[in-house]
Amino acid sequence: MTDNSRIGEVLSTLDKELPQALDRLMEFLRIPSVSTDPAYRGEVRRAADWLCAELIGLGFEASVRDTPGHPMVVAHSQRGDRRPLLFYGHYDVQPVDPLELWQNPPFEPLIEDTPQGKVIRARGASDDKGQLMTFVEAFRAWKTVHGRLPSDLVLLFEGEEESGSPSLRPFLRENAEELRAGMAMICDTGLYADGRPAITTQLRGLYGEEIVIRAADRDLHSGSFGGLAANPIQVLVNVLSTVKDSSGHITLPGFYDGVEELSDALRADWAALGFDASEFLSRVGLKQPIGEQSRTGLEMVWNRPTFEINGITGGYTGEGFKTVLPAEARAKVSFRLTGTQDPKRIRDTFRAHVRAAVPQDCTVEFHGHGASPASRMDISDPAFAAAKTALSDEWDREAAYIGAGGSIPIAGDFKEILGMDSMLIGFGRDDDRIHSPNEKYDLQSFAKGARSWARILAALG
Amino acid sequence: MTDNSRIGEVLSTLDKELPQALDRLMEFLRIPSVSTDPAYRGEVRRAADWLCAELIGLGFEASVRDTPGHPMVVAHSQRGDRRPLLFYGHYDVQPVDPLELWQNPPFEPLIEDTPQGKVIRARGASDDKGQLMTFVEAFRAWKTVHGRLPSDLVLLFEGEEESGSPSLRPFLRENAEELRAGMAMICDTGLYADGRPAITTQLRGLYGEEIVIRAADRDLHSGSFGGLAANPIQVLVNVLSTVKDSSGHITLPGFYDGVEELSDALRADWAALGFDASEFLSRVGLKQPIGEQSRTGLEMVWNRPTFEINGITGGYTGEGFKTVLPAEARAKVSFRLTGTQDPKRIRDTFRAHVRAAVPQDCTVEFHGHGASPASRMDISDPAFAAAKTALSDEWDREAAYIGAGGSIPIAGDFKEILGMDSMLIGFGRDDDRIHSPNEKYDLQSFAKGARSWARILAALG
Repeated sequence: MTDNSRIGEVLSTLDKELPQALDRLMEFLRIPSVSTDPAYRGEVRRAADWLCAELIGLGFEASVRDTPGHPMVVAHSQRGDRRPLLFYGHYDVQPVDPLELWQNPPFEPLIEDTPQGKVIRARGASDDKGQLMTFVEAFRAWKTVHGRLPSDLVLLFEGEEESGSPSLRPFLRENAEELRAGMAMICDTGLYADGRPAITTQLRGLYGEEIVIRAADRDLHSGSFGGLAANPIQVLVNVLSTVKDSSGHITLPGFYDGVEELSDALRADWAALGFDASEFLSRVGLKQPIGEQSRTGLEMVWNRPTFEINGITGGYTGEGFKTVLPAEARAKVSFRLTGTQDPKRIRDTFRAHVRAAVPQDCTVEFHGHGASPASRMDISDPAFAAAKTALSDEWDREAAYIGAGGSIPIAGDFKEILGMDSMLIGFGRDDDRIHSPNEKYDLQSFAKGARSWARILAALG
Repeated sequence: MTDNSRIGEVLSTLDKELPQALDRLMEFLRIPSVSTDPAYRGEVRRAADWLCAELIGLGFEASVRDTPGHPMVVAHSQRGDRRPLLFYGHYDVQPVDPLELWQNPPFEPLIEDTPQGKVIRARGASDDKGQLMTFVEAFRAWKTVHGRLPSDLVLLFEGEEESGSPSLRPFLRENAEELRAGMAMICDTGLYADGRPAITTQLRGLYGEEIVIRAADRDLHSGSFGGLAANPIQVLVNVLSTVKDSSGHITLPGFYDGVEELSDALRADWAALGFDASEFLSRVGLKQPIGEQSRTGLEMVWNRPTFEINGITGGYTGEGFKTVLPAEARAKVSFRLTGTQDPKRIRDTFRAHVRAAVPQDCTVEFHGHGASPASRMDISDPAFAAAKTALSDEWDREAAYIGAGGSIPIAGDFKEILGMDSMLIGFGRDDDRIHSPNEKYDLQSFAKGARSWARILAALG
């Protein structure tokens, strides 16, 4: 009963202070902290400074810490003897193009009434500024009501998550003593499809590659050279067409080494979620799952590896027509990985496959992007059960253990470098349009997200 | 001797007035008349107006004639009873991108000293403003010296050649009586590789197509949808990889219907030109002819059809990385045609081939561009021999009958609509970088080009 009354007052404070919490989030969302584009470097730092100032205002010992890339924000509540909890989020956001498809400017957030309730619309609303602020508001309410937090906390907020986190692993290594905690809490995932609270216990890995194929030393006229000179776009499309066969099976030798089948228990749990792939696709104007037809929809997005072409460009792409043989063509591709697939080995295999397909008169250049294996959590740790109960209480329905098709390499990095497990809890929804125009975060996700963390802090404290 | 003295004075006038002729060409080149890009519509008209004013200044009855697209410039020397000669050129130019590869701004022409002699560097210098002005300067010199031209002339200068000439055929039909002439002179081709004067007697046809593949109604995150949702870039590269096999053979059913083998006579003539494909490619940083290895290099570029991807775009192509499944992907492709290949039949076959490869959840949209068959001239007409002699006299070496890999559909249109043959004579060179950054036209081409036309006028007059 003491615990119940302690948390009750925190929750009612969160409810009462929601308008102010939203104002803070809006201020944060107005900073265009696009980490992948060097033009936004100053804005990324401004977001770090803003966050650091917020945390200092809450009584944290916080600082912006330089890296060779974008900075980290690190904060400590108090330094006690106990093994603290670490909270991780990221303050950088995805690029916004195509800009013309946004209904409001991506960095001018607004609260919008929709048939499904109020939403916060802006780049980063869901991924990950809105989620990150659910932590901060939960901390604030605990401090307001009780003067201190129920656990010692270490906070680590990075600014390179959307660009492959190049500085993260060195930073974890160099600051291992300071950052090591009992468990990491990561808020960068979602509710299950129908709004059911969930703890994500497995994530796909990611390995990306930009490929540049070059042929002649200039663009050529297809009238003068067509039929005789190598066309780098043709070379590129030929090789990209051979990575997957028509059944969605990836043809690189040894690619499936380390891919694991689901346990019977998890297979049954996932089946109980009642996922309908066609219904899921219909929300984005599609009907028909492509790929490995022998797999269930959830297996395909959570437990099977994929190859995707994320971008391609070459030759004349403007208005009208230009009968050119271009000097170069480029593609950005990525693999999602599962089980213990080794991203570095797959990178070597993929590069060799491309090199073998490039004719004598062409050259190929690779620019690697990320190389993180998949993660799978040990859910026998009692903290998982405690957090699951806290989530079930807040949302008034049974929380689920789920997978995620996206890649949050930080969980693997925490395990490997700091020896600690991660608990992935988030409040995003499938229709949040993260990485797309018109990203949004449900107001309910934000409000109940903060309440959820307040409860989890109490449960693990 | 009378003829010789008549032409002698014209040629010496051309030599003396070359600086003024260059000033006029520079003024013309400064007008960015890019016909494929609607943003330049006003500039295209400005080029037409400039040209019309020049011709009126020379005593032509000239006017700018509206079409649904860019205007035509039409002019008459005098209206006599004789069958006049028609002169055709185009005053529009190719787009200039990638702009950053130009050493001087493309519409700020300059005369440059190079190891191979002086060149005029600007977009359109060779294709086709410089060539068009060789006509105009030849007319001017004849008028200056003799007060009148040796033949009645009709001039037709269009502004849509680089964008598929959509208005040309209707214009020819509507103005057939006014435009019909004994023979058309077209200046939009080149000297043979080593600077040998040449009359082009066959041209490849062209059929182009922009393909747009669409899947989801928005860009998707490859973490959430990868493996399940159709990726339009993958669909596009898969289909584009199937049009040509590894030996360069185009796989569309019936594609080679109408392709003609060379006559023995022409095969021998072309062999005598001593074309070395590897040497030709080495000038643009390449070594190895691709495509049909059983064909000679000249056959491949002059007498064999091709398929080329001229542009491709889809997904994220900016700095850094974005793990997106895009909503759409686009490509611009073109076929060069020979013999009596039917562009409309090939269009139907190609579109059917693409449609058959597009999965259920995707749509495809086509935007056709040009559909002109190949052209082959009847060189038994004595005017060909007369022009060949005039060219041989001017350049002091035997002129050759050659082919061209590019497409000048106007020759076919003149034949079909006005019932007249065309004589294709031009002074461009293979290293003119037409359609590429840093286009140039040799000063010698310009000066001797005008002299050549002055002689041809005398020979045919």
